[in-house]
Amino acid sequence: MKLSPLVQELIDNLKHLPGVGPKSAQRMAFHLLERNRIGATKLANSMAKAMEHIGHCRTCRTFTELEQCDICASPKRQASRLLCIVESPSDILAIEQTGEFIGRYFVLMGHLSPIDGIGPEELGLDQLQNLLSSDEFDEMILATNPTVEGEATAHFIADLAGSYDVSVTRIAHGVPVGGELGYVDGNTLSHAFSGRKKL
Amino acid sequence: MKLSPLVQELIDNLKHLPGVGPKSAQRMAFHLLERNRIGATKLANSMAKAMEHIGHCRTCRTFTELEQCDICASPKRQASRLLCIVESPSDILAIEQTGEFIGRYFVLMGHLSPIDGIGPEELGLDQLQNLLSSDEFDEMILATNPTVEGEATAHFIADLAGSYDVSVTRIAHGVPVGGELGYVDGNTLSHAFSGRKKL
Ligand SMILES: [Zn+2]
Ligand SMILES: [Zn+2]
Repeated sequence: MKLSPLVQELIDNLKHLPGVGPKSAQRMAFHLLERNRIGATKLANSMAKAMEHIGHCRTCRTFTELEQCDICASPKRQASRLLCIVESPSDILAIEQTGEFIGRYFVLMGHLSPIDGIGPEELGLDQLQNLLSSDEFDEMILATNPTVEGEATAHFIADLAGSYDVSVTRIAHGVPVGGELGYVDGNTLSHAFSGRKKL
Repeated sequence: MKLSPLVQELIDNLKHLPGVGPKSAQRMAFHLLERNRIGATKLANSMAKAMEHIGHCRTCRTFTELEQCDICASPKRQASRLLCIVESPSDILAIEQTGEFIGRYFVLMGHLSPIDGIGPEELGLDQLQNLLSSDEFDEMILATNPTVEGEATAHFIADLAGSYDVSVTRIAHGVPVGGELGYVDGNTLSHAFSGRKKL
């Protein structure tokens, strides 16, 4: 005896969520059906809308449904002449929470990983070079994750930037080695920014 | 600086999922946007459809989009004259996996909990009494959870069944006390069924 097709389909599809296996997918499905149909319907609508309409900022590549994100569109940020390179949109959130960086970002959406077929093109490095050649920036701060891949990516980008008139810095290793930037507390991140070193 | 409205809305709505807080909602949203838009779109469609179309079996109250579930509609099950009372649809799945019970179910969708306003009516006990008076069953097996509330609910239903010509049994305490039925291994559940005692 099996579950009805629609119930089974819901459970199967919940497994698309990261970190959700068969048992928790089942628990989630029954919980939503039993106790939160309104919330689940809102989630379904908002997820469908998000997947259809959210693209990437044409300048920094972060997620947005607009052509350009709020940060790239801000005159105050445009005046700063500082560009911070991060691996993921969640890193922007973590850095913004420190309140200490008033500049612009460029989101790689990953790090170099030849084994997964992720090279310079996938990280949008052509687009980054266009930004660097625009003469809008004095300094590029490499804030990739303090992991082996993040370091390798930072060095690759630093080499690439040699052809442009921009100084290249790396956030200090106040950030714990081996961790992910999005999980670092604000205080540590502040120190990492203020202690940044010229590469 | 904030996230774009659609991204923020997706993160907020992901918090409707049980066990998902702000940090994991954010992680889920970025993961889906970055790596699994097709899966997320399928999930959104299937969730919307499920919330709209899945109701309760008119006989046993389990979740189904049909008027009657497969188990209630099965002639083999109808011939068995055994009725098993469980708290939740996931308990049916656990019991079916043992392959040892060929009978029908009645799903309470909870247990008696006066403090939460859950009384006999919320558990569908009127409907259960209709079933008992139909003379379709010789035995009713109480398979509510081996918790304080599950025991209290089992005793309440046993008392109620006194007016009907049906013998009432409780699954044996092979099941670990204080646990939830849906998480018990099949072997333990088999023993609990075969060791059931007349109440
Ligand atoms: Zn942008
Ligand atoms: Zn049924």
